[in-house]
Amino acid sequence: MQINIGILGLGTVGCGTVEVLRRNAALVAKRSGCELRVTRIATRTPHKPRPVEVDRSLISGDVEAVLRDPDIHIVAELIGGVEPARDYVLRALAAGKSVVTANKELIAKHGGEIEEAAARAGVDFRFEGSVGGGIPLVAPLRESLIGNRVTQLMGILNGTTNYILTKMTQGGADFDDVLREAQSLGYAEADPTADVDGFDTTYKLAILAGIAFGAPVSPDSIAREGIRGVGARDIEYAREMGFVIKLIALGRQAEDGEIELRVHPALLPQGHPLASVNDVFNSVLMHGDAVGDVMFYGRGAGGEPTASAVVADLVEVARDLRCGAAGRGGGRRRAEFAWKDLAAFVTRLCVRVPVADRPRNAGAHRRCFRR
Amino acid sequence: MQINIGILGLGTVGCGTVEVLRRNAALVAKRSGCELRVTRIATRTPHKPRPVEVDRSLISGDVEAVLRDPDIHIVAELIGGVEPARDYVLRALAAGKSVVTANKELIAKHGGEIEEAAARAGVDFRFEGSVGGGIPLVAPLRESLIGNRVTQLMGILNGTTNYILTKMTQGGADFDDVLREAQSLGYAEADPTADVDGFDTTYKLAILAGIAFGAPVSPDSIAREGIRGVGARDIEYAREMGFVIKLIALGRQAEDGEIELRVHPALLPQGHPLASVNDVFNSVLMHGDAVGDVMFYGRGAGGEPTASAVVADLVEVARDLRCGAAGRGGGRRRAEFAWKDLAAFVTRLCVRVPVADRPRNAGAHRRCFRR
Repeated sequence: MQINIGILGLGTVGCGTVEVLRRNAALVAKRSGCELRVTRIATRTPHKPRPVEVDRSLISGDVEAVLRDPDIHIVAELIGGVEPARDYVLRALAAGKSVVTANKELIAKHGGEIEEAAARAGVDFRFEGSVGGGIPLVAPLRESLIGNRVTQLMGILNGTTNYILTKMTQGGADFDDVLREAQSLGYAEADPTADVDGFDTTYKLAILAGIAFGAPVSPDSIAREGIRGVGARDIEYAREMGFVIKLIALGRQAEDGEIELRVHPALLPQGHPLASVNDVFNSVLMHGDAVGDVMFYGRGAGGEPTASAVVADLVEVARDLRCGAAGRGGGRRRAEFAWKDLAAFVTRLCVRVPVADRPRNAGAHRRCFRR
Repeated sequence: MQINIGILGLGTVGCGTVEVLRRNAALVAKRSGCELRVTRIATRTPHKPRPVEVDRSLISGDVEAVLRDPDIHIVAELIGGVEPARDYVLRALAAGKSVVTANKELIAKHGGEIEEAAARAGVDFRFEGSVGGGIPLVAPLRESLIGNRVTQLMGILNGTTNYILTKMTQGGADFDDVLREAQSLGYAEADPTADVDGFDTTYKLAILAGIAFGAPVSPDSIAREGIRGVGARDIEYAREMGFVIKLIALGRQAEDGEIELRVHPALLPQGHPLASVNDVFNSVLMHGDAVGDVMFYGRGAGGEPTASAVVADLVEVARDLRCGAAGRGGGRRRAEFAWKDLAAFVTRLCVRVPVADRPRNAGAHRRCFRR
């Protein structure tokens, strides 16, 4: 069965998806029984040269042509950002097309609305690529671990900040210097706010926690602190005490049954499974009541890793279409827990206090409260 | 929609499955839209006390009653071993029931035959629990990574041998002593052959490689060596050279395009991602051409971890049944590669040679060829 795909957006992930579908077309067709064919691509810059082999006759600047083409079964939204992506996705769903996206900000902010629209239209909506690049996370959490009550979810979900913290840890350099290096290497954006201030990580935590704990989570309800305040000295003191500093996304059920969600730099014991996740790699550690601890690890970003997730979603949708089972994955999401108020967290803090103005304490630069 | 399940076998995994389905029934129903109800259980020992809460009126010694009950939609085969499990599975499929199993030996030896029977019957056949306990491996490999050409698969797939090697590494003890300790703790069987001689690991590698490389693999075609020959001295020398010894399952595409499959103790550099997988934990590292390296980690055995996988498979089948999409996951498996002849492997070996009879070399106990 041939499934026709319209792609919106031809940046890093769009090009990766076109390339993976082209290179592994025979493999995918053989394994899935479906032939996935890209029949239209819309981009703001149709004439720009691309680093991959792509039939230029498919490319135009015309999004409407994709959304209105009755022969297109699935729209892959690979533009990013909230608008106009949200508008395009809702219109594709309303037109009876299934949608696949890798857009974390869109899902984190409007996932509930979009899932409802997909359910009303009786089509599929999938977003594996929105968290952790090509690491299987959304499907394992939603499908493989469906029999578990998840009690904790902890992850390193942003490659840029993990790269910066890794370099600071290995080289003893300070934040600003490593950020400049990361920018020159293309690992950080010219405006690094989304990454270093933790917004990107809160989007991803909102997506994973929404699945794990059974209800859409607003990223605004997540306590957030980025890594700008982490200095070389913090990392040095952490090491002395047997810890490394990582930007952690944490969702867990507190003893009172409520769920707390937070993103901030944290001290991890050097033997912790996430402590050795370095450079641009991502990893998520989950605890389920039946499975115990499980961990997933891999490249959390990049064109082809994210394309790996997009292609997997396209195949799942194609399988549903082949069986007339669009919308198959359904099952409603209703809150299983209350979200904890930000002011009510109980946690341990390490506070470094410069006390050079009090001579009898000279040299004391920190207080570390009991772990 | 109510889906009726018949369970064959009420050992560790059977009891775990009954318990997880009971404890998380509401959660599973809400998330999946399907109510999974166990309506019959057959076991050789129906009157034996069980460590879990189970409605004893469901339990009997009568397998036929399960296979012939027209109201049962899915049979969960949790007996283990090849016969009579194979016979029961084939008869359940022929009767139009979908089948879920956690039986590694059965899948490794007869997976191709059973998949064909399921395809003929137009029903589902799933086996996530057969490898790595509750770690999502089969579904991620088959679904999430479907767009990838997998070039390497490397894993620690047997908890018993990993426990023994971990204790030997941490305590400097010899194989026989640690084996006895593992047996007394219930981590090793009275007859430990299946684990320590690597058979269990070859079954699991056969299953994963069959999916990753696209064709059923016979466990007999896998080069196999267990850990009986690993001594405290090997581990000590390995450590001196910066390595740890692990029982590794390896499937990879050699430079000539053929696939080599082997199970044996191997030296891993101490910084290798699998080197820190200790005790009864399992882990699999895969490399796909799009996704790069991805790793999965968790408890590779045990009642509830394996039940986590069995329940996930039951829900996937239930979703297919609800949509009239049984057999949805299909797509034929045909060999993508040639299997490498066992005699044609190219690898590096570390050989320890006792040379005490040659006085001028006294103290030289090993030769390590270039890594």
